[in-house]
Amino acid sequence: MNSPTDITPATRRTALRELDLDRFFHPETVAVIGASDTPDRPTTLNWRRIRDWANRVGSRIHPVNPKKEMVDGLPCFPSILDVPGEVDLVVILIGDAMGVLPQVISSGARYAVMFAGGFAETGAEGARRQAELEDLLAAGQLRLLGPNTNLNAFEEFRDDLPGRPIALITQSGHQGRPVFQGQEIGIRFSHWAPTGNEADLEVADFVRYFADLEETGAIAAYVEGFRDGRTFQLAADHAARKGVPLVMVKVGRTAIGRSWAKSHTGHLAGSDAIVSAVMRQYGVIRVDGLDELLDTAAMLARAKPPTARGVCVYSISGGTSAHMADLATAAGLELPELTEDTQRALREWIPDYLRVSNPVDNGGHPTGDWRGRKILDALVADPGIGALVVPITGAFPPMSDYFVRDLVAVAETTDKPVCVVWGSPVGTEGAYRDVLLRSGIPVFRTFGNCITAVHAYFQHHEFMREYQSPWDRVELRPSPVAPKARELIAGGSVLAEHDAKSLLAAYDIPVSRDVLATSASDAVAAADSIGYPVVLKVASAAIAHKSDLGLVRIGVGSATQVRETYAELVDRASAAVDPALIDGVLVCEQLTGGVETVAGIATDELFGPAVMFGIGGLAVEVYRDVTFRVPPFDRAEALRMIREIKAFPLLRGHRGQPAADLDALADVLMKVQRIALDLPGELTELDINPLLALPGRAVALDAFAAGRTKEQP
Amino acid sequence: MNSPTDITPATRRTALRELDLDRFFHPETVAVIGASDTPDRPTTLNWRRIRDWANRVGSRIHPVNPKKEMVDGLPCFPSILDVPGEVDLVVILIGDAMGVLPQVISSGARYAVMFAGGFAETGAEGARRQAELEDLLAAGQLRLLGPNTNLNAFEEFRDDLPGRPIALITQSGHQGRPVFQGQEIGIRFSHWAPTGNEADLEVADFVRYFADLEETGAIAAYVEGFRDGRTFQLAADHAARKGVPLVMVKVGRTAIGRSWAKSHTGHLAGSDAIVSAVMRQYGVIRVDGLDELLDTAAMLARAKPPTARGVCVYSISGGTSAHMADLATAAGLELPELTEDTQRALREWIPDYLRVSNPVDNGGHPTGDWRGRKILDALVADPGIGALVVPITGAFPPMSDYFVRDLVAVAETTDKPVCVVWGSPVGTEGAYRDVLLRSGIPVFRTFGNCITAVHAYFQHHEFMREYQSPWDRVELRPSPVAPKARELIAGGSVLAEHDAKSLLAAYDIPVSRDVLATSASDAVAAADSIGYPVVLKVASAAIAHKSDLGLVRIGVGSATQVRETYAELVDRASAAVDPALIDGVLVCEQLTGGVETVAGIATDELFGPAVMFGIGGLAVEVYRDVTFRVPPFDRAEALRMIREIKAFPLLRGHRGQPAADLDALADVLMKVQRIALDLPGELTELDINPLLALPGRAVALDAFAAGRTKEQP
Repeated sequence: MNSPTDITPATRRTALRELDLDRFFHPETVAVIGASDTPDRPTTLNWRRIRDWANRVGSRIHPVNPKKEMVDGLPCFPSILDVPGEVDLVVILIGDAMGVLPQVISSGARYAVMFAGGFAETGAEGARRQAELEDLLAAGQLRLLGPNTNLNAFEEFRDDLPGRPIALITQSGHQGRPVFQGQEIGIRFSHWAPTGNEADLEVADFVRYFADLEETGAIAAYVEGFRDGRTFQLAADHAARKGVPLVMVKVGRTAIGRSWAKSHTGHLAGSDAIVSAVMRQYGVIRVDGLDELLDTAAMLARAKPPTARGVCVYSISGGTSAHMADLATAAGLELPELTEDTQRALREWIPDYLRVSNPVDNGGHPTGDWRGRKILDALVADPGIGALVVPITGAFPPMSDYFVRDLVAVAETTDKPVCVVWGSPVGTEGAYRDVLLRSGIPVFRTFGNCITAVHAYFQHHEFMREYQSPWDRVELRPSPVAPKARELIAGGSVLAEHDAKSLLAAYDIPVSRDVLATSASDAVAAADSIGYPVVLKVASAAIAHKSDLGLVRIGVGSATQVRETYAELVDRASAAVDPALIDGVLVCEQLTGGVETVAGIATDELFGPAVMFGIGGLAVEVYRDVTFRVPPFDRAEALRMIREIKAFPLLRGHRGQPAADLDALADVLMKVQRIALDLPGELTELDINPLLALPGRAVALDAFAAGRTKEQP
Repeated sequence: MNSPTDITPATRRTALRELDLDRFFHPETVAVIGASDTPDRPTTLNWRRIRDWANRVGSRIHPVNPKKEMVDGLPCFPSILDVPGEVDLVVILIGDAMGVLPQVISSGARYAVMFAGGFAETGAEGARRQAELEDLLAAGQLRLLGPNTNLNAFEEFRDDLPGRPIALITQSGHQGRPVFQGQEIGIRFSHWAPTGNEADLEVADFVRYFADLEETGAIAAYVEGFRDGRTFQLAADHAARKGVPLVMVKVGRTAIGRSWAKSHTGHLAGSDAIVSAVMRQYGVIRVDGLDELLDTAAMLARAKPPTARGVCVYSISGGTSAHMADLATAAGLELPELTEDTQRALREWIPDYLRVSNPVDNGGHPTGDWRGRKILDALVADPGIGALVVPITGAFPPMSDYFVRDLVAVAETTDKPVCVVWGSPVGTEGAYRDVLLRSGIPVFRTFGNCITAVHAYFQHHEFMREYQSPWDRVELRPSPVAPKARELIAGGSVLAEHDAKSLLAAYDIPVSRDVLATSASDAVAAADSIGYPVVLKVASAAIAHKSDLGLVRIGVGSATQVRETYAELVDRASAAVDPALIDGVLVCEQLTGGVETVAGIATDELFGPAVMFGIGGLAVEVYRDVTFRVPPFDRAEALRMIREIKAFPLLRGHRGQPAADLDALADVLMKVQRIALDLPGELTELDINPLLALPGRAVALDAFAAGRTKEQP
């Protein structure tokens, strides 16, 4: 496992490891250490579950237990070393799993599952045990699932259900259960990987494997923390290249969630803003609830790609249509007008006083007769419509039974998803259980979950159409200026403004014309050459917020003023810090107009350096209107970053101001990324604030940088 | 019905009308016009539903139908006028309801239900018919439910269910159905008022009536639009005074929702920001989905007021606890540490390696034995905990059956709500259907709905503890300066800055010291008396955005500069508009420092004038960080308004700046309200921008006002 700060391009993975997980899920030979047939023992139950699974998938299975000669009629081996032939998978059911692990490793087995807990999830002592486990594994060829996992991989996967299946990955068995129970309401699953503490096999390995399987409709994951930010990026990239939707609940929106995740499975959760950024970069669909995870993954697995981006809302009641349309529109779905042809057709079956464009409401009666089907046929035929959304709020069998049959029938005639909300809180009705749930069409119990899933469906396919992997396009090797940059930050933990700007200049990021003056007459000479008015700032790495302390003067208009201001600033600064820490006064060209933006680098414990962009002032400080990207990303992504902030309209030219040069801003962000890639772990923070966005260029007016101090590990 | 602009204090209601709705829900005598026993006729079914209901509630019932002598064995009357004695309730089932209405009115019946549609929901012709209907009603004493309604008021209300009941109000029968079906999962309902088009009886009438009933646990409402903003305010105030929670879905978050609502029941939906503001003012709980409406209303109806504001999350799995705690905290719920005593107690039953503070995770095993109940007893006994939240994700009968029994048993020993999430997507399990749903404790199917409801529960009770009705405390009669103010806005539709400031000054709102100069030398004299530097602005009601056109100059520092600037501004303005429309140049004192805020009045089609507050610039223009209140509101509410905006920290003193005077800002908002109350319908817009918030005072630096033009109705 890479340490969080060991993230230089040279040492970090740029490709996922090669694993043959087919051998894990379809082993030829399985051995179970701790197998037992003593009645009422948990290991007996567990052994039998694994045995039954092995029988289902056609594997040979061997019990291992020094206290038994036979287990359930099968010859039992005293140790894993006694099992004949190659073993693909060893399941360790015994409590002292660490005691047998060396034998398992030397047996040459390919995979093992370690059921036992008591590792990183239990605190410092457990973390030490887990480190020991990881060291043991590093020395051998065995790949291990766990510890602190369970037998969810060996569930019964029904093959009688419709549609493409969901592959499930969870770091907690309990949290996976309500998702996997989707099988009981007709949703197909192909696999369940319960990764537990991830001493070795991790979410990323399974994402990659599932994305490579032809049949996978969607990958659903419940994640508390990532073992490694980099492998998650690579796995998400792999799924995006394959076009396989990856839907995820990620705990850690708040500090309490992050701290608890650590104590549950020993994972770092990472800063939530950075995690969200990575998900956006790779088109991972993030949801909050396990119900949304199931519903969204099912929708994505079942529905074919859209042929148009419009949604048509159709119901038997004007109120229902209005409510659903309102919520759908508020969530960003598009409800286009239906074509004139469609509207004309609908008019034949829908009474005159009802509206026949989007949303559509049939007033009730046509539902129960031959017109119901005609209306549905017309709606799915509309070329602007990519998905039909049909909320059925109350169950009223004389109407809803008929309606549901028509919906299921029309869904069979089209590739467009026909999404039905069964809004009754009861959920035991025949139309729901026997017809909808068995049909393979996307079914929801709430308007909210339907909207979330349909939104994800359009977003996923739109993202995939445009997706270009950044790993093929971004230079990951250090750039030629890296050694020079490293020299600049070698001096100390915090760089004074002029040094920080030298760092930027080394990467060709435009900075204001500045001269560091160490005397009043130097300052005047500098101002004369730059041109009046100028800005004067105290230059000292020891002072972080110069403006707040009154150590910045703008509009200094003449030589006399420069001389006076120089003296005043130095006096004032000397009152605040040791004069020996004052390098002098920076004389800077004064630029006006434009929009003050901010760009920089933040270092995340999980993902390493991340590039930041936002609008300065209130926008950052009050509204947190900033966005992040984790390298590598390409230029198109840098432009998306800029467009993504809420205050973006300011950059397009606000209230008659000229537009800022977005390409120039994107250039700066790409160069900031270059710095982040060259100096990870060495440069921990960079803050260009303001980065003035002007027509034709972007100029760094002030900058702050911090390197790793010697005390930091 | 008041017209939207007929909202002067003198003519608008300040109290709800008095109705005896007991007579509607418990009539002594009911007559049904159109009653029939001809088989297979819809009216036959409907008549029988009403007859059965009348039998249940103990009312006498009379069929009315000129074509029948007897209906289902009861003597039938040819017309309503032939029915003997007083009739409390007439249900009109026939299509030509308007044809019999005059008879119903002259019969002296108290209430009628008009089933038929074809009124305001069907467009202009229908709206005309509805206006006719309203005129008929205005002339008599009859109170009418409908038109375009249904028989939901006459449902069967189960009296065998636990807890206090929900009273339901819906403007659409279909949309009410999945809420009312809550009865089928054990949630008690006392009434259902289906208000349809609200030609007369409206949501407000029923809110008031239900709030007055001792038994009502919560009022749940599905609303597409309000008949009258004012009556909704008064009804919400009534419910707040009574402490009865009012939970509401209100369609109209988007334009499509608002337009559709109008075509469905003929209601205006109002601006969503204003609707939300009114809900906040009166503590109305707004939710988005019908599932949330049911779940939140049930929680509020069932749970006693909290004794502490802390939530404890408890589950059998660390992952489940982490996930729920994360979402709950993100939603604003408080999860305090448990007391040391509680933690010590928990340690006896929960293994050492699991955390025993909030959230709590028992690791699974204690659930299935005597320890499970001990843990629950300790959690509910913790003095900092006001509600227990217990997510059960997967159903696993050997554990969850035991768990559920303990939860139901412990809930009986405490007034603290024990909220259970049954997360299985299946929902047919015995522990859920037979134990949880029958128990009367709040049960949810998703983490999200549980959090929404628990959040609403704490918010409701906190709001009610502080609630002071503004109707008792705010002066609603016109103020003495109203005639002077009216004179100022009588001149035209848009007021020039200096006139708008005179209006403010008339209400004692501090304005900058300004002088209107009509010559350069006047301007110099004005500047001399105000003191340099000054601000010069072109004065013209014809120019809306002076700054954007370069018609404002700040920092004019000397008499010479004033003279030059005067000439330049007049030249520039003359190029933009007819010189005859230029009143001169405003010479204004230049104030520096402080925070630029905005305050004003917007006029809503439903609620009339609303008072607005926000921070100027980006905050308003990009982030829409503004807030509204609809009069009347008191000073405490004005302060809440100020504190509610996201940028509020700026006013408390940001980055070493002095704090603004919040009382001075509240004063201005109260005076703006005074203007709104004095001039509704006459002044349609007021915009004080900027209102400079300084230490010790708040000063209007610029203002814009618009009166109603003659063309406006």
